[in-house]
Amino acid sequence: MNKATFYEKNKTIRVGEVEAVAPGPGEVEVQIAYAGICGTDLHIYHGKMDWRVAESQIMGHEVSGTVKAIGEGVEGIAVGQPVTVMPLAPCGKCPACKAGHSHICYNLKFLGIDTQGGFQSTWTVPAYTIFPLPADLSLKRAALVEPLAVACHDVRLGGVKAGDFVVVLGGGPIGTLVGLVAQHTGATVLVSEINPLRVEIGKGLGLDVVNPNDVDLPAWVEERTEGAGADVVFEVTAHPAGAEMMTKLLRTRGLAVVVGIFSDPLKVDLFRFFWRELQLRGARVYEREDFAAAIALAASDALPLDGIISAVYPLERLIEGLHQLEAGGDVMKVLIQCS
Amino acid sequence: MNKATFYEKNKTIRVGEVEAVAPGPGEVEVQIAYAGICGTDLHIYHGKMDWRVAESQIMGHEVSGTVKAIGEGVEGIAVGQPVTVMPLAPCGKCPACKAGHSHICYNLKFLGIDTQGGFQSTWTVPAYTIFPLPADLSLKRAALVEPLAVACHDVRLGGVKAGDFVVVLGGGPIGTLVGLVAQHTGATVLVSEINPLRVEIGKGLGLDVVNPNDVDLPAWVEERTEGAGADVVFEVTAHPAGAEMMTKLLRTRGLAVVVGIFSDPLKVDLFRFFWRELQLRGARVYEREDFAAAIALAASDALPLDGIISAVYPLERLIEGLHQLEAGGDVMKVLIQCS
Repeated sequence: MNKATFYEKNKTIRVGEVEAVAPGPGEVEVQIAYAGICGTDLHIYHGKMDWRVAESQIMGHEVSGTVKAIGEGVEGIAVGQPVTVMPLAPCGKCPACKAGHSHICYNLKFLGIDTQGGFQSTWTVPAYTIFPLPADLSLKRAALVEPLAVACHDVRLGGVKAGDFVVVLGGGPIGTLVGLVAQHTGATVLVSEINPLRVEIGKGLGLDVVNPNDVDLPAWVEERTEGAGADVVFEVTAHPAGAEMMTKLLRTRGLAVVVGIFSDPLKVDLFRFFWRELQLRGARVYEREDFAAAIALAASDALPLDGIISAVYPLERLIEGLHQLEAGGDVMKVLIQCS
Repeated sequence: MNKATFYEKNKTIRVGEVEAVAPGPGEVEVQIAYAGICGTDLHIYHGKMDWRVAESQIMGHEVSGTVKAIGEGVEGIAVGQPVTVMPLAPCGKCPACKAGHSHICYNLKFLGIDTQGGFQSTWTVPAYTIFPLPADLSLKRAALVEPLAVACHDVRLGGVKAGDFVVVLGGGPIGTLVGLVAQHTGATVLVSEINPLRVEIGKGLGLDVVNPNDVDLPAWVEERTEGAGADVVFEVTAHPAGAEMMTKLLRTRGLAVVVGIFSDPLKVDLFRFFWRELQLRGARVYEREDFAAAIALAASDALPLDGIISAVYPLERLIEGLHQLEAGGDVMKVLIQCS
């Protein structure tokens, strides 16, 4: 039996047991070491995705662990191998998959949301989602690979290059990782974050962070870029204020990358897009190359990733991690030790 | 003395005379043959740009003609040479100019709007705005080069290539030209236009035109693209319905090119940009290469350009052309014969 946590609706997390899933053909059972709590898990906990998740949903999709068992026909993966999971199961048949964009498949199953997830002792997943980890990468840090892959995807789609001036709107876990990856690429990075405690965390990680309630951000960026504006702005707030701000900061033909999930259509200054020939693109999850890049980055010691981890709780105390994130404040990423 | 027409505010056009401007150093005086009426001229006539235009403004910036006189220091231009004018005067010093985007200069002067324009017998302009015309290009058709250059710019920034499925929202003069240029590039083009008379004009020019009031456009595009969606959508309506429609038509990572001038921020579905990793870019006026491409296209007989010309009036009857455009209906481009 696996130890597991279940989301039972109404902001209720139940700790219990569940039958471990023996890996079928093409599957791998992973002994989960650590699983990070994602903003989406908090969203589920808040009841916002009850239409989508299962009864007694096991959440969690940012995992690290070791291979426990291997199903029929799986090759190139050894028991005991440290691994992480890219939690996307595309259909392979829709127009997005056919166009080579299987990460945004029309019928995408997100493992741990549309299937049972990783907040349990072992997690059985398709073998194609498994990424082996280098032996010298700690499993704690490896639990950050999934959100780091989001940042690698965003920065890649943003076309960020050395010498660029980049602004990241929103200094939560994803915004902070986007800032760190962009900075590692050689860009000058400014992070905008309204939570004073997160401003301090970001600064502690070596980022230049400002609070847009304290400074005139467009004037600040204009001054720093000799009137030109930013090359790339990452919108990671999912707040109307961010959507309004992004167009004010960009140079002619600059690019806004929309990472934040805006649930409703909202006002965007299309005139500014026309006037300055601005560009925008959405960026969602990651592709295999982003996962590979994230693993290499995590193993390289180039980024202060351990500083992103605010707390580690045992599986039984998942609810405390959710409460800590709910309260906000002095917190970035909370990991759950699953076995 | 030049014959000229003056915009005297309050929807008043005065026909009169004005001193011809002798070309100073670096300037060229062009004997204007034809000048097209732009939507912007109609906008000025409606009083929407009174804050910007001069007292007794001479409008007109879509011109063809022959060189009448040449100022000091101008080389490579001969009297009698047929020419057109790219009516942009950038400052050369601002961040946009320094970045190589002088066509969207921060301090751009648009000739004929921010300076006196081409609805007169001769027009004196900077020599660098002059583009010589091939001898076999009629001056009537050459008056379409400026709007055709807009279309060439839009299609180029849209990255349209052979085999693409392209939708153009708005079948007025610019949308029609965008559709024709995209079709010439080898794309399959669908134009969406609500004015039934313009639907017929577009069809007569060899375009596939539908009225979105008669068909379910997203379903239509989905069916035509086997569920994938359009590669590129050109938003040329500047109407909220167009901004809403564009995101519904695009394939994963498809591109919306914003050509229409939206005066106010309006609702855009940023979730769809995120979900399908859509892209957007604004496209404004043209660059030198677009003007060169437009001249070559106009001279090539590849496009049914003469069919865009709905009427030609002598200079004294500019007001009739404005009224015809104001009334809408069965009209595309109206030319004014200036001398």
